[in-house]
Amino acid sequence: MAQKPSPITRLSAEAESRLKAVLPADRLLTEAADCWAYGYDNSRRQVCPQAVAFPESSEEVAALVRVCHDLRLPVVGRGRGSGTAGAAVPVEGGLVLSMERMDRIIEINPDDRLAVVEAGVTNGDLQRALARHGFFWPPDPTSADYCSVGGNLACNAAGPRAVKYGTPRDNILGLTAVSGAGQILRTGVHTTKGVVGYDLTRLLVGSEGTLGVITQATLRITPLPEARRSLRAVYDGMADAAAAVSRIMAQPLTPCILEFIDGRAIQMIRDYAETDLPEGAGAMLMIEVDGSAEQLDLAEQAVSKAAAGPGLRELRSARDEAERKALWAARKALSPAQRKIAPKKINEDVVVPVSRMADLIGGLEALSERFGILIVNFGHAGNGNIHVNLLVDPDDPKQMAVVDECLDQVFRLVLSLRGTLSGEHGIGYDKKQFVVLEIEPAALELMKQIKKQFDPAGILNPGKLFPE
Amino acid sequence: MAQKPSPITRLSAEAESRLKAVLPADRLLTEAADCWAYGYDNSRRQVCPQAVAFPESSEEVAALVRVCHDLRLPVVGRGRGSGTAGAAVPVEGGLVLSMERMDRIIEINPDDRLAVVEAGVTNGDLQRALARHGFFWPPDPTSADYCSVGGNLACNAAGPRAVKYGTPRDNILGLTAVSGAGQILRTGVHTTKGVVGYDLTRLLVGSEGTLGVITQATLRITPLPEARRSLRAVYDGMADAAAAVSRIMAQPLTPCILEFIDGRAIQMIRDYAETDLPEGAGAMLMIEVDGSAEQLDLAEQAVSKAAAGPGLRELRSARDEAERKALWAARKALSPAQRKIAPKKINEDVVVPVSRMADLIGGLEALSERFGILIVNFGHAGNGNIHVNLLVDPDDPKQMAVVDECLDQVFRLVLSLRGTLSGEHGIGYDKKQFVVLEIEPAALELMKQIKKQFDPAGILNPGKLFPE
Repeated sequence: MAQKPSPITRLSAEAESRLKAVLPADRLLTEAADCWAYGYDNSRRQVCPQAVAFPESSEEVAALVRVCHDLRLPVVGRGRGSGTAGAAVPVEGGLVLSMERMDRIIEINPDDRLAVVEAGVTNGDLQRALARHGFFWPPDPTSADYCSVGGNLACNAAGPRAVKYGTPRDNILGLTAVSGAGQILRTGVHTTKGVVGYDLTRLLVGSEGTLGVITQATLRITPLPEARRSLRAVYDGMADAAAAVSRIMAQPLTPCILEFIDGRAIQMIRDYAETDLPEGAGAMLMIEVDGSAEQLDLAEQAVSKAAAGPGLRELRSARDEAERKALWAARKALSPAQRKIAPKKINEDVVVPVSRMADLIGGLEALSERFGILIVNFGHAGNGNIHVNLLVDPDDPKQMAVVDECLDQVFRLVLSLRGTLSGEHGIGYDKKQFVVLEIEPAALELMKQIKKQFDPAGILNPGKLFPE
Repeated sequence: MAQKPSPITRLSAEAESRLKAVLPADRLLTEAADCWAYGYDNSRRQVCPQAVAFPESSEEVAALVRVCHDLRLPVVGRGRGSGTAGAAVPVEGGLVLSMERMDRIIEINPDDRLAVVEAGVTNGDLQRALARHGFFWPPDPTSADYCSVGGNLACNAAGPRAVKYGTPRDNILGLTAVSGAGQILRTGVHTTKGVVGYDLTRLLVGSEGTLGVITQATLRITPLPEARRSLRAVYDGMADAAAAVSRIMAQPLTPCILEFIDGRAIQMIRDYAETDLPEGAGAMLMIEVDGSAEQLDLAEQAVSKAAAGPGLRELRSARDEAERKALWAARKALSPAQRKIAPKKINEDVVVPVSRMADLIGGLEALSERFGILIVNFGHAGNGNIHVNLLVDPDDPKQMAVVDECLDQVFRLVLSLRGTLSGEHGIGYDKKQFVVLEIEPAALELMKQIKKQFDPAGILNPGKLFPE
């Protein structure tokens, strides 16, 4: 987990002059002091790029990539650096393409349920613009206010609403991207159906900048529900809560949010905040339903009926905004509490089938005991997407000696339950050594060959996604 | 559009003996008289394969493909031959892999909303098995009773329910497939989220057997709605109906069916059947909403409100099964009427954004007049997926002299409206020359290179999907 310091040298004179021929001086940084801030992301890893460019069109991106292709200079596309797996960190130096100036919303078309945007627009700006038309784009990572749509697509970054509305891959119609050879690719359609040729769109989504730099996207948008209602269900233990999640997901009314926190997380909230959670609470579900105002009572009934069962200790629903805030207070106290006791926690975002969540939490408790590392779990229960937090203390040599082994065991446990290593954070740099645990050699080899077709010189985000 | 007779020779002695070493004699056909029936699909094109195999496992498929790879023998995966674009026709001869004996349903898991099936199971058998658990798999092509799930996936074949529940690509979690090198590939996940590596699953879906032979699939399944209700809306003309479709799709309550037929189709129904359609009907929408029994009234209200507007001549809803049947009678009279007047009609399934449907229908009327070919349109309005029927008479040399030019103009019109050439039928053999109209050279070249990685010897369904 250590920072990898990389002795990146200055650009060659040829590279500098050729890049300067593409962009004016005020849109190209080449001094380390200026570039430094663009070598960082939310993985807390940092490597200084040799240059940072601020393109304003797909054509400029293509021209920049062609220079890098000729000179074998790495190219790292960058949204807003909110990713947690190091995908935006230029670990081999090179040119960072910061998409922040390509932030136009080109078209919002409610009749056709689509929007066309440049990759650099923030998720939050897009949602505000769409809301004025009565629409939204489903992906809602926690960083929605400042992360970019291009970054969301590159990492297939979702959020709680995915349980009902899907991930970026489910909410995309087409893309414009620049390949590693500097070619502009247009993929996909402007419609919700289409079967002409291979699905390059969904191949680019989630490829973390290793197949192309996404410059523009045609997004599938959804009408905003009229109203929503929050419920909170508290259970004796995780097995009871997980069984309730299965029951909720097996009936037709899918909630738009179905989050959980486990017993250790509840204990942490008790230790660091005031809370109205009942005694003996061993797991908690936060549930939201949405729809027309008239439908909400029926929706609440359906979900409440499914939430009821063995081990249910308390079920409350919020009738107004104040009650809603009160219900969410416990959940929202969790992150500050975690930061307080473990500022350098390791946060993984594994996924298991919903029916295996209780097994996963049980297995994680055993690993926590075995390795002497506190593990706290919460996440998107409706998708089985669990944020596993190893609250390690980097100054404790005993913990640091076993943390890699513990993490390896966590991933093996997940895979033994038919799970996957990441639901929304991606592989990036941090998880690339674990990919071989999940993907078989034949499929991995195919992925490498596909990468070569998009990126013959191997310049697109090198050192990411594939194991060394 | 002529049948392409192909002088396919018998298998070489080496090929025959190597294939016989993989499968027992009763699961391998090599006589032309036996093979003939497997050279046909619903495109009405037919070419006799040199051999037909009936594998019972992914391992057997892999062994057969390895033989073909060594001997450069074409391999064509086959579901039930219900495709309309010729994708299952072995136009270059070789081995047909009929998946009909791989028809097991391996697992139905309501808690995790997934089912694992072999590729040869029919869509209908799967739906019946799922219904016993209160679930369904959304794709519902007209041929659902006898088409195979593997074929649905290979062609991304959808149906009316796609407007609410999506296409196969939206309802798949993972696949087992055999590459053109005879390797078994396992792709995807068992969960609704996952971002580890490239999305090979959705690359294989819709690739029409050119990247791999799908042998097994992990499907995303959906709880069956408790109840549904049908509505029929009749409008003065197509522009009014198309505007209503836009209104319906811009509000939150998405119907589970939103079909239309145009004025010429209504005229045809009048000519060939008794009907209760009002005088002056210029377009008709069939709408269905689903949900819990208590929700249906609200759903009907929401959709009715959106359906109302300029040009609405009549809006009726069915309160019971008898009324439902009566409402659908007009729509169901259309296909027999078409078959009667034009048994060899050409049926395309183009897609345009919902807001451009009226423009498309108007443009098609102009082309119909210009070329002297009757064009009748109906289809999945909520997706803008329009079945364009050219009612040509193959014995009329005047029509046959212009039909190719007319088709070319249809496709150019579709693309000028930001549409796509096919929504659910695919490219296969019949439409491959038109692909270059839609896909730009850079993307097409990438697709070809991707194919080479999956299929280095070029044996998987040769002569399909790519223009010559």
